[in-house]
Amino acid sequence: MFKSKIVKLVVNDVRFPTSLEQHGSDAMHSDPDYSVAYVVVETDADLKGYGLTFTVGRGTEIVVCAVEALSSLVIGKTLEEIVTDFSAFYRLLTSDGQMRWVNWPLWKLLVDMDPRKLIRCIDFRYITDALTEQEALGEVCQLNDQMLKEGYPAYTTSCAWLGYSDEQLSQLCSAALAEGWTRFKVKVGADLQDDIRRCSLIRKMIGPENTLMIDANQRWNVGEAVSWITTLAEFRPLWIEEPTSPDDILGHAAISKVIRELYVCVCVCQCHNRVMFKQFLQASALQFVQIDSCRVGSVNENLAILLMAAKFKVPVCPHAGGVGLCELVQHLILFDYISLSASLNNRMCEYVDHLHEHFRSPTVIKNAHYMPPTDPGFSCEMLDESVQKYGFPHGDVWRSILKQKGSQDNFSE
Amino acid sequence: MFKSKIVKLVVNDVRFPTSLEQHGSDAMHSDPDYSVAYVVVETDADLKGYGLTFTVGRGTEIVVCAVEALSSLVIGKTLEEIVTDFSAFYRLLTSDGQMRWVNWPLWKLLVDMDPRKLIRCIDFRYITDALTEQEALGEVCQLNDQMLKEGYPAYTTSCAWLGYSDEQLSQLCSAALAEGWTRFKVKVGADLQDDIRRCSLIRKMIGPENTLMIDANQRWNVGEAVSWITTLAEFRPLWIEEPTSPDDILGHAAISKVIRELYVCVCVCQCHNRVMFKQFLQASALQFVQIDSCRVGSVNENLAILLMAAKFKVPVCPHAGGVGLCELVQHLILFDYISLSASLNNRMCEYVDHLHEHFRSPTVIKNAHYMPPTDPGFSCEMLDESVQKYGFPHGDVWRSILKQKGSQDNFSE
Repeated sequence: MFKSKIVKLVVNDVRFPTSLEQHGSDAMHSDPDYSVAYVVVETDADLKGYGLTFTVGRGTEIVVCAVEALSSLVIGKTLEEIVTDFSAFYRLLTSDGQMRWVNWPLWKLLVDMDPRKLIRCIDFRYITDALTEQEALGEVCQLNDQMLKEGYPAYTTSCAWLGYSDEQLSQLCSAALAEGWTRFKVKVGADLQDDIRRCSLIRKMIGPENTLMIDANQRWNVGEAVSWITTLAEFRPLWIEEPTSPDDILGHAAISKVIRELYVCVCVCQCHNRVMFKQFLQASALQFVQIDSCRVGSVNENLAILLMAAKFKVPVCPHAGGVGLCELVQHLILFDYISLSASLNNRMCEYVDHLHEHFRSPTVIKNAHYMPPTDPGFSCEMLDESVQKYGFPHGDVWRSILKQKGSQDNFSE
Repeated sequence: MFKSKIVKLVVNDVRFPTSLEQHGSDAMHSDPDYSVAYVVVETDADLKGYGLTFTVGRGTEIVVCAVEALSSLVIGKTLEEIVTDFSAFYRLLTSDGQMRWVNWPLWKLLVDMDPRKLIRCIDFRYITDALTEQEALGEVCQLNDQMLKEGYPAYTTSCAWLGYSDEQLSQLCSAALAEGWTRFKVKVGADLQDDIRRCSLIRKMIGPENTLMIDANQRWNVGEAVSWITTLAEFRPLWIEEPTSPDDILGHAAISKVIRELYVCVCVCQCHNRVMFKQFLQASALQFVQIDSCRVGSVNENLAILLMAAKFKVPVCPHAGGVGLCELVQHLILFDYISLSASLNNRMCEYVDHLHEHFRSPTVIKNAHYMPPTDPGFSCEMLDESVQKYGFPHGDVWRSILKQKGSQDNFSE
């Protein structure tokens, strides 16, 4: 298999018109159409690879273009060339931008990988002052198959999007409680009185024994964040997610310093690389690391972040949702548990119940836990039919929507 | 004029094959083909707008695609709509990404603008803890026309690219001294012994009275940077530019803390937005702010950075070179001098003597000073002939190069 060569790479712009029903709406994104740039890699053997990254509609064509620009670095390579030195291959790709390639149930590949080889995936340039290759190796340990039986704990964001009515919130929250969910996230940040009403409603429904988290999606300035969170602290949120710009390490540190007195933690996900996460950890600017499978460029980059979180003893609670983010990130958090943290204390993975039906191996949730995938790959092979139907702008769904709108201008092709 | 409407936007991928002669080579970019995504905006009146951003070859098509993706936000707008509320227009564009539009000799537009209107260009979200609207207004003052007579001091990077031989260095340095240049930048970071030899050579030629700066182009880890700079400190560089990742604020602060004992400053340019610069200033992680006209998305973003630098009393020494960066950034530094700093102490603007011949109003250097442009616009209208000839991949120059190479694969169209 390793001798087979990559001979073709196809990338599709696939968009789901989720904005029509306000799924995914938050304080910064009022009309997201959840979308993916979806990549299929073909080899000269009977073997394909699948990858995707998540976007929210407009601009997906830019990502498609970026993938096409990088494709010449991938086409013609044998799997052996890539696997023999992941680090060299990674630097080759990241010297231009982003890309992802895998072939195996990814979490098994990572967990089973020889620790030295695993460490070779990581580009330590710029982060050795926080984590050396030697230290990283020390962090890598092996654990058991408990996950296959019990799964990894999840929390739900599906109950409380910003655009939902109070009635919808109540109905969805009741249903989730009945299904065994114990951890709930609420979108906040657009209007304080609304937030108070919504947080109060959810806290009453879930009771003091369950977990509430709030997410501002980068809406505030530093001072605003502190005063807003101070008001919402009475509803005992475990964390505030993204109170301000994800680039603002010192700002998050300042917010954290104040709100920890109110027993509220800070959580950040939209950092763009390992150098940013390094500084968030060094500056004690967060208490939960939210990796995201698509926001940073590659699995390799996330490995560096997971290892740094382990060294700094900060729990990882992945960001997910979107399209395929749950499918992808479950592999990384299983690796984190089995090979690094060995602890479920204050750890959970976000879950959003949307769009899984478009994947060949969708996530399986049992009793509010992610059940480890056993199919090969990174769980992101999509159904051909979905790719056709939601392809932008020529798939059936979009042709119909765009026709109704009377013009394509509103969707900025 | 303000009633006229934008009716068309054309973007070109223009590449100059500079890698063939090692112009622009440094410790991280061994084969740059200096390029631009070049935008021409047409109105329904006899009025056009010009814009560009700088790239180094491969990937320019991604920027072209990004511009096309944003074009629908611009087409159909009247100039009045844009000018009446720059801030709203800016947020409209930055909610998706980058863009630039101007119409006037830009530095005059900025300098002459009513201070309140100028301040309205800036998106203060995320930076109010470092600079409020009120403080920014206080920083804006008016100065005189001294610039028109004397120009703004420049330094040269043209003498010491990494790929040049010692003989080339000597010849170019002699010529520059004869032309009146007093400030010189040397590329370092690939090989320490080479750096010692090259820095020693340049320092001997320019003598102790002239200024030497060194630039590592993000090559080092934090620890490496400290030891490398410690060795090169004997050549008395004013600053080390980009010792490590431009995202690493805390890393730069750590480097700065050590090397200031050796009287070497830290200088950073490749920050991607105002939030990053804010933190560099808050953390005392740099002693010179190097704005870049293209790296951050828009003039508006650079206004925020200039105003913060003024408040923190850190001199601004712009980054330039590339294609059109000198043409663009001269407007911003003239504004900085006339309306903000009113000082030339420790201030200078980078100059590289390449590719100016492709512009309708190229920079004018007299006695190592930038002479203020008087033509309308942002000085980035290119000659039609250049756009045609260097258009990638169908312009004459590229068709000939690609034909010689035998295949387009090496240039990743």
